Amino acid sequence: MAVTEKAPTPVNGVAVDQLLQTVEAVKATPSIAKFKFRVHNRWATGSQNSSCAAAFSGANQELSHPKPFTLEADEPAILLGQDTAANPVEHLLHALASCVTTSMVYHAAAKGIRIDKIESSFEGDLDLRGFLELDPAVRKGYQGIRARFKISADVPDRELQELLGLGTSHSPVFDSLLHGVPIAVLAERA
Amino acid sequence: MAVTEKAPTPVNGVAVDQLLQTVEAVKATPSIAKFKFRVHNRWATGSQNSSCAAAFSGANQELSHPKPFTLEADEPAILLGQDTAANPVEHLLHALASCVTTSMVYHAAAKGIRIDKIESSFEGDLDLRGFLELDPAVRKGYQGIRARFKISADVPDRELQELLGLGTSHSPVFDSLLHGVPIAVLAERA
Repeated sequence: MAVTEKAPTPVNGVAVDQLLQTVEAVKATPSIAKFKFRVHNRWATGSQNSSCAAAFSGANQELSHPKPFTLEADEPAILLGQDTAANPVEHLLHALASCVTTSMVYHAAAKGIRIDKIESSFEGDLDLRGFLELDPAVRKGYQGIRARFKISADVPDRELQELLGLGTSHSPVFDSLLHGVPIAVLAERA
Repeated sequence: MAVTEKAPTPVNGVAVDQLLQTVEAVKATPSIAKFKFRVHNRWATGSQNSSCAAAFSGANQELSHPKPFTLEADEPAILLGQDTAANPVEHLLHALASCVTTSMVYHAAAKGIRIDKIESSFEGDLDLRGFLELDPAVRKGYQGIRARFKISADVPDRELQELLGLGTSHSPVFDSLLHGVPIAVLAERA
């Protein structure tokens, strides 16, 4: 009887065989796990600016996207903008939502948990008295963020929160935003 | 001789008269400073998902963008994606770059400092051994973020860093990411 090679089956759209190969490769050569991500931002006017995400490094090499991605930002009229794009704090919520979702999908795939559907709603509280420096007790940033996920997956209802925990406990953006990141900034003459 | 009304002059594309009116309005009614921003995210497959930023609340009312903004996310091939969009940690850098830039532009405008040009490069360090759970000492999130701004503005070179400080010290995303934000997540059956 011929031995047929088993075709690799993606789970949740994730090539689990490649994911496991990546884990083994990183175990053998930890330096390939180091990545640097970058954006280049240009101010247009007022609240309008855009970032370009083109190149990054990882696995000991310089890499680039097939085409550069342009990400726009503006503010709504009530915040004195032209409302041509999502604003920075909405982009922050998108970064968080997308990262928790992808982290959940990958880690569920690695465990063989099939997911059919994920939707999530994120909401963050801002008090502009911080930005406007009207009250030193009011922080500039989000005071809190709440997210509600609706998930259809191959787990009992009582394990849905644990499944979501695979996302929150592994997500780079969730960790960055929950615990904070050191940020260094330098200005020079253009 | 007729007294002519002085037309409000935008500085850096910011309607400074409206900005100062906003400050006075918030002083009179602090509750109008409370905003809630939201995104709704839908997972497509694998590393692909998108967020919609449509409605928000502020100034004691429900508000919405003239049209909903869709923000896409994916991962590059080396991270098992299809590379159709910037990834979540690039979106995080965009949120940060755009917010620091807009915060600098607004606060400079309020002080009457004219800015001609701003460009910035943001770079963040990630070690995937965190995400892959290969070393508990390695964090999942960014280990550090560096930004370099090139600015052309109506200030002496020695004050460029101070000008940039108007951005970092007031930016909601900078504060959120530097100091962290409480995040609550809930999962339920779709």
